[in-house]
Amino acid sequence: MPIVRVEMWPGRTQSQKAELARVITEAVVTIAHTTPEATIVIFEDVAKENWAVGGVLASQSD
Amino acid sequence: MPIVRVEMWPGRTQSQKAELARVITEAVVTIAHTTPEATIVIFEDVAKENWAVGGVLASQSD
Amino acid sequence: MPIVRVEMWPGRTQSQKAELARVITEAVVTIAHTTPEATIVIFEDVAKENWAVGGVLASQSD
Amino acid sequence: MPIVRVEMWPGRTQSQKAELARVITEAVVTIAHTTPEATIVIFEDVAKENWAVGGVLASQSD
Amino acid sequence: MPIVRVEMWPGRTQSQKAELARVITEAVVTIAHTTPEATIVIFEDVAKENWAVGGVLASQSD
Amino acid sequence: MPIVRVEMWPGRTQSQKAELARVITEAVVTIAHTTPEATIVIFEDVAKENWAVGGVLASQSD
Repeated sequence: MPIVRVEMWPGRTQSQKAELARVITEAVVTIAHTTPEATIVIFEDVAKENWAVGGVLASQSD
Repeated sequence: MPIVRVEMWPGRTQSQKAELARVITEAVVTIAHTTPEATIVIFEDVAKENWAVGGVLASQSD
Repeated sequence: MPIVRVEMWPGRTQSQKAELARVITEAVVTIAHTTPEATIVIFEDVAKENWAVGGVLASQSD
Repeated sequence: MPIVRVEMWPGRTQSQKAELARVITEAVVTIAHTTPEATIVIFEDVAKENWAVGGVLASQSD
Repeated sequence: MPIVRVEMWPGRTQSQKAELARVITEAVVTIAHTTPEATIVIFEDVAKENWAVGGVLASQSD
Repeated sequence: MPIVRVEMWPGRTQSQKAELARVITEAVVTIAHTTPEATIVIFEDVAKENWAVGGVLASQSD
C-alpha cells in the first residue's frame, strides 16, 4: 500500500531509477512491513527551470 | 472546492480524459454535494519509465 | 495502476467516501480500461482554515 | 523548510517564474519566519488538456 | 486556475496563513496574470516527526 | 534537491520512520548522487478510511 514519490532534477538514467526503485521498495518492505507488490514508487523529473531555492531558480544559480 | 488528481500511464486519448472528467465531476457533485464550477480535475501522465511496482519499473516488466 | 486523489473540505461521511470510491473506480476502469485491483483512490480532508480562494481563507469567508 | 508548489497552465516565461519564486519566497520568509535557503518553490506546468473545471477540459472550453 | 500548495511545519497562526494566502494570491495574480477567484492556496502542516533532512527526522535534530 | 514523499497507512513508529528516512536518504545519495543535506523525506499517514483499492475503502475490506 505505500506510495513513494521521488522528485529530482532530470538527468538520472533508467538504470539509476531502476536501482532506486529496487532499494527503496526493499527498505519499505523490510522496515515498514509491507509487501513488494503493494509498494509503488513514482519518479517525477522537475526541470531546474521549475525549481527554486532561496528565491532563485536552480537554472539561474548554476 | 474539490480537487481531483488522476495519475495514469500515458495513452488515454483526449476523449477518454474528457469523459473521465465529466463522470468524476458528476460523481463528486452528486455524492459529495459540491458545485461543478468549484470542482477541478487534473490529469497527470506518468511514464512507465517513472512508475515502479514491486521494485521494478513498469517499463521493464512488460 | 491509476492513483486518484480527492481533496475536499472535511464533512463527508464514510458512506459518502465509500460511494465516491466505488463510482470513481468504476469510471476509471470503464473509461480508461484499467483493472479495479490496480486502482487506488485516496481522500484528503483539507480544513477550511487551510484552503484559500481569492486570497481569503475559506474559514473566514463563510 | 517550507515547500511551495505552484500548478499553472503553461505559458509563463522564465522571467515570470523567477519573479514569482522571488516574491513567494520573500513572503514565506517574512510572514512565516523561515530562512530563504530552506524555502523551495516548485512550478508544475499543467496543460489545458489535463485540467478540467465543471467537468470540461480547459482545452475544450476556450 | 493556479493551485498553490504550501507545506510547512505546524505552528503558524491563522493570521499568518491568512496573510500568506493574501500575499501569494496577489503575487500570482500580478505576475502570472490570473484572477484572484481562480487562485487556490492550500496549506499543509507537516509535523517534524514526518519531515527528515539529511536522513534525520526534524523532531530528532532539534 | 530530491524530495521523497512516503504515503502509508498509520501505525509505523517514530523509530521505523527514522530508519526509513535514513535508508532512503542513503539510497538517494548513493544512487542518484545528491547530498544528504539537500535530500528531504516527508511521511504522510493516510487513514484506511481514506484509502480505497478496487473501489472499496481499506477500512471496510479488513
